[in-house]
Amino acid sequence: MPHYLPIQWVNGHLRLLDQRELPAHVTFIDYVDDAAVAEAITSMVVRGAPAIGITAAYGLVLAAQRSSGPTVREMRADLAAAGDRLRRARPTAVNLFWAIDRVLQRGLDPRLGTIDDVRRAVLDEADAIYALEERSNYQIGVNALPLVPQGAKFIHHCNTGPLATGAYGTALRVIIAAHEAGKDVYAYVDETRPRLQGARLTAWELQQWGVPHSVIVDGAAAHIMRTVGIDLCVVGCDRVAANGDTANKIGTYHLAIAARAHGVPFYVVGPTSTIDMSLASGDLITIEQRPGEEVTHVGRTQITPDGTAAENPAFDVTPAAYITGIITERGVVYPPFEDNLRGLMAQE
Amino acid sequence: MPHYLPIQWVNGHLRLLDQRELPAHVTFIDYVDDAAVAEAITSMVVRGAPAIGITAAYGLVLAAQRSSGPTVREMRADLAAAGDRLRRARPTAVNLFWAIDRVLQRGLDPRLGTIDDVRRAVLDEADAIYALEERSNYQIGVNALPLVPQGAKFIHHCNTGPLATGAYGTALRVIIAAHEAGKDVYAYVDETRPRLQGARLTAWELQQWGVPHSVIVDGAAAHIMRTVGIDLCVVGCDRVAANGDTANKIGTYHLAIAARAHGVPFYVVGPTSTIDMSLASGDLITIEQRPGEEVTHVGRTQITPDGTAAENPAFDVTPAAYITGIITERGVVYPPFEDNLRGLMAQE
Repeated sequence: MPHYLPIQWVNGHLRLLDQRELPAHVTFIDYVDDAAVAEAITSMVVRGAPAIGITAAYGLVLAAQRSSGPTVREMRADLAAAGDRLRRARPTAVNLFWAIDRVLQRGLDPRLGTIDDVRRAVLDEADAIYALEERSNYQIGVNALPLVPQGAKFIHHCNTGPLATGAYGTALRVIIAAHEAGKDVYAYVDETRPRLQGARLTAWELQQWGVPHSVIVDGAAAHIMRTVGIDLCVVGCDRVAANGDTANKIGTYHLAIAARAHGVPFYVVGPTSTIDMSLASGDLITIEQRPGEEVTHVGRTQITPDGTAAENPAFDVTPAAYITGIITERGVVYPPFEDNLRGLMAQE
Repeated sequence: MPHYLPIQWVNGHLRLLDQRELPAHVTFIDYVDDAAVAEAITSMVVRGAPAIGITAAYGLVLAAQRSSGPTVREMRADLAAAGDRLRRARPTAVNLFWAIDRVLQRGLDPRLGTIDDVRRAVLDEADAIYALEERSNYQIGVNALPLVPQGAKFIHHCNTGPLATGAYGTALRVIIAAHEAGKDVYAYVDETRPRLQGARLTAWELQQWGVPHSVIVDGAAAHIMRTVGIDLCVVGCDRVAANGDTANKIGTYHLAIAARAHGVPFYVVGPTSTIDMSLASGDLITIEQRPGEEVTHVGRTQITPDGTAAENPAFDVTPAAYITGIITERGVVYPPFEDNLRGLMAQE
């Protein structure tokens, strides 16, 4: 596990690394209230599909602690209300809903006779979700290793390291695991406008792990493929539909098109908790529109003229046809994705 | 002509709008010395292929003014030395070399008997270059108009307005001319990292001209094509090779690949002074590598961790196969570019 745990359960409260302040400052914020946790997810104190799932799970633990009951039924009503608030924090990543559903379901276990039983059960479930993501992340690195040639040059988009997942990371884990295995890899880091998760977070994480890298602007990826040559693109995912269409950070689809044009393998990397078999295709995924200020400002610096409008879709959908494979903790899935994802998700 | 002239010859000296300060401040810097003009080009006080050509031409006028001669031969030596300095200011845009060569050639006219004759001649030539670009820019808008459908939605990359050309602009002129013709156009403005010419300059220019627009991050272009639908992409050019391969601001090639994937017509727009028939293909174009600080910093704000390396190619080359047509003041050139550019350049 990395030495910088972005999500920690400490002495009965939740501690989050404030990712908005990285890389300039490593600061933590403590939470005792699920409404504040929902706000932390919306304002991106914590971000990354698996990480916001884990965070929401602990948000429900805080709700259970604060609920005065006094009956189990009333506590369950408080948990359901907290679940609704947390569900509204962000719309695109499915892990958020998956984790909330798991914790609420556990709280409904008829064997839980007292409100203390419910409190213990939801904490157990949140811990279990965190532990599951940790094992998943590690196994993703193991499963990806055979796909990475010696001396591989990667392009990576957004941030998918421990900061995004709470544990080892997903797409960034592929790079780090190959580095640890002595494969002499090099990473080109898309800066990932507008919120610069690549420049701010991925560069910082690769520095922590000692992986050679350089940052590029998002528009330079195709030029780097054409002039330097790239062996693999790896990206995370916020929601994978049953047909393999993948919602991920804005710019992912653009990168996938460039990869296809250059014959560069393009891998989506994520735990199975990100796969949403209830959606037939990516057209059904809700794309979060975030405030235009994220585009018109960098930090506190305004870059556009006063009054300039900006479109700010936070995610895009990459059609399955652009995806070489989806790397999960259960193995690598190849086309035809519809059949092969169904088979993967049927495994237990 | 726009009310904000970026390049002005005023009372015997050169006045440049400091484009680094836009859109926050409209400030001008006066130049009396060709070495300072070269530095202004390198540091991007003025940028845009046609604009730096005009600026360098007036840089030579300043060199002629400052040269004490006393003979015509000595003044010509001073001009040649100034030409060499100005030529080194930036490597990619051919207009710089084209303008310098034209002014130096004019200074060599054997009919120029005195140093005052030479001074007058180089000023005449600089004025002629400026007037030529102005007429070219205007005619580009006229030639493009039939290509623009009513209600067209554009994506535009970098800045190609009056700021980039000294006159009406090139790719941005296509949008503005269609707007003036009542075509009810809408422009999505690529912000164009790293130097944000789209967010800073193009948004500002479209505001001046009253054209409806919004800014997007560069990585969002493919998503906008897929979800909103785009009718045309228009970009400028820093150098067009004889086969149509085009060097332009980094991100242009990335955009061209996305346009191809969505069947969106992709037009390169520029005056014939940007076409370099001496280069057989784009592989021979020198791509300027600029300081990594342009990527790791936005304005004075550092966005990456200390010590992070960045690759910062200022331009990329879009292979001719991705280009629908090249819009010039002499007409629109279509494939096969090798034959049709030769024909265009043979016209006088």
